[in-house]
Amino acid sequence: MLPTIDWHDDAIVMIDQRKLPGAEVYVRCRTAAEVARAIKTMVIRGAPAIGVAAAMGLALGVRRSKVTGTAKLAAEFQKLCELMAATRPTAVNLFWAIERMKRTFAAAAQAGLSVDEIKDRLQADARAIHDEDVAACRALGHFGAELVPQDARVLTHCNAGALATAGYGSALGVIRAAAEQGKRVAVFADETRPFLQGARLTAWELVRDGIQTTVITDSMAGSLMRDGRIDLVVVGADRIAANGDVANKIGTYTVAVLAKEHNIPFYVAAPVSTIDLSTPDGAQIPIEERDRREITHLGSSQLTPEGALIRNPAFDVTPSRLVSAIITERGVFRSPYTETLALAMQGGATTS
Amino acid sequence: MLPTIDWHDDAIVMIDQRKLPGAEVYVRCRTAAEVARAIKTMVIRGAPAIGVAAAMGLALGVRRSKVTGTAKLAAEFQKLCELMAATRPTAVNLFWAIERMKRTFAAAAQAGLSVDEIKDRLQADARAIHDEDVAACRALGHFGAELVPQDARVLTHCNAGALATAGYGSALGVIRAAAEQGKRVAVFADETRPFLQGARLTAWELVRDGIQTTVITDSMAGSLMRDGRIDLVVVGADRIAANGDVANKIGTYTVAVLAKEHNIPFYVAAPVSTIDLSTPDGAQIPIEERDRREITHLGSSQLTPEGALIRNPAFDVTPSRLVSAIITERGVFRSPYTETLALAMQGGATTS
Repeated sequence: MLPTIDWHDDAIVMIDQRKLPGAEVYVRCRTAAEVARAIKTMVIRGAPAIGVAAAMGLALGVRRSKVTGTAKLAAEFQKLCELMAATRPTAVNLFWAIERMKRTFAAAAQAGLSVDEIKDRLQADARAIHDEDVAACRALGHFGAELVPQDARVLTHCNAGALATAGYGSALGVIRAAAEQGKRVAVFADETRPFLQGARLTAWELVRDGIQTTVITDSMAGSLMRDGRIDLVVVGADRIAANGDVANKIGTYTVAVLAKEHNIPFYVAAPVSTIDLSTPDGAQIPIEERDRREITHLGSSQLTPEGALIRNPAFDVTPSRLVSAIITERGVFRSPYTETLALAMQGGATTS
Repeated sequence: MLPTIDWHDDAIVMIDQRKLPGAEVYVRCRTAAEVARAIKTMVIRGAPAIGVAAAMGLALGVRRSKVTGTAKLAAEFQKLCELMAATRPTAVNLFWAIERMKRTFAAAAQAGLSVDEIKDRLQADARAIHDEDVAACRALGHFGAELVPQDARVLTHCNAGALATAGYGSALGVIRAAAEQGKRVAVFADETRPFLQGARLTAWELVRDGIQTTVITDSMAGSLMRDGRIDLVVVGADRIAANGDVANKIGTYTVAVLAKEHNIPFYVAAPVSTIDLSTPDGAQIPIEERDRREITHLGSSQLTPEGALIRNPAFDVTPSRLVSAIITERGVFRSPYTETLALAMQGGATTS
């Protein structure tokens, strides 16, 4: 299992995803603020992984608190939640994890547990969120693998892999599960500018697993599809609205349009913690605009001239009409998503 | 006028397009072999500019020849033509320029001119090819500007600018002409991985000209179109087949599919030297595959892990059904291209 994020003594340790594949460097977070900064600066990224990191960060922050009394701890916890919520706006797993930890805190406090017991409960729940995420990825991988034919040539965008989750991966979980079933799978990884999650992270993960991986620039996917070299697309998600609209890494929408143009299935793989029934459609999903430097520079190289304007939205929204199916740990859901996703959130497992 | 390529004493001087926008470095080619290497390594690139460079390189090579007698000069010229033709396979302007220089040589030899006179003729014709290219860009810019509305938000891909031609530019010539007519134009430049012609060259040119330019990653164009932020697309071409299929920088096809999806006009701007009636359709156009290092590295940074496969086609083909019009110095041509392009090559000027 890849070491995306884990406890290590009194700290949370993450592999620094900004440094891969050149260097395997681990970042040690000793405070909740350090975890929040790690999320914001993309030491760790990927919607499920962000949720796990936030939960672990809250547990860490509470555990290091010196206050006495549940009321003071609750006030401090509330501030930590606000800190964590302010890191990145799009991935709903972040808010999902914070809300879950709030409920855990409230239940423990209501049960009259001591400050130390509340801290233990929060740490246990953060561990559970971590472990459940791995289990969800394995389960959705199992469901998704059914959609992957023998000798499939699969295009993916960004990194929805072990590094984007607590482990195993969502989109890459589907690919891993298909490979574990003995299917030959060849993966084409969009490099995914500007942060290059595909070139750096997806390729690194899959090559480690011995899965054939070809890196292409984002601009090549259309040409490959036209030449009949792609059988299906599978990507992750940062937030899935109630109607099935999907926010994911910038460029996902383009891939979906291309898939439709070439009659290629376009699948979204995500744990149900990514589904947000309180957001009716994609137009309501906040899209993070990141620093211009991600586009103007690469390392020490300046790529653009002074005076050029820059836009850097980190995500786009793919309308549900372009989504062939949504693969979750509770099964595979298809249109009409407003009905099927509501069912999914009630726990109903359906595959179609 | 930007100094893409020019004579300077006994040498050909080109701005090194690999170094822009960070540094304005000029490369001095003293032999035809140095010109060929400059084309191959993309010191100079862009289909019309490649054609101009090849013609100038041939004139330079012949002028430096020490042989006596027309027959020996003809043999040496033939070898120079083969050297030049082996540089890059897709841009047809290269072969167009070589053929034109061959005809000039043959006519001069047939007229009984001396070796020195033949050398002068070739140099004069190379100068003419250079100057005609600038004139063609200005003329097509004039025709194309009619298609650009006031306050247009124009998307372009790669660099079809002054740097890709002898001057003024094809796609950027259309934008420049619209701006000169007093229209406000805002340009969105796809950064154009892997060589970053958009981020580095298009932005550099347009910012110098005071035209508002926003650099985006190639993956953002779809999202911008969906948000209603693009009014038209204009790109250049490396080869236009008889049926109107267009080979251009990798990613152009994706932009064309996106334009169609959003009902946005998709224009191709190119001098008629880019039209190749001997190539019936896009499937017959050879597509250059370039070195994997263009994708695996940027400067000294390694972007992909060891073990990852790479594909790096430099061009793709956009089928003519996605092309709203082809803008040339002889007018604006529309479907059915098999008829209208044949007319264009006979010199017929039509605008529609």
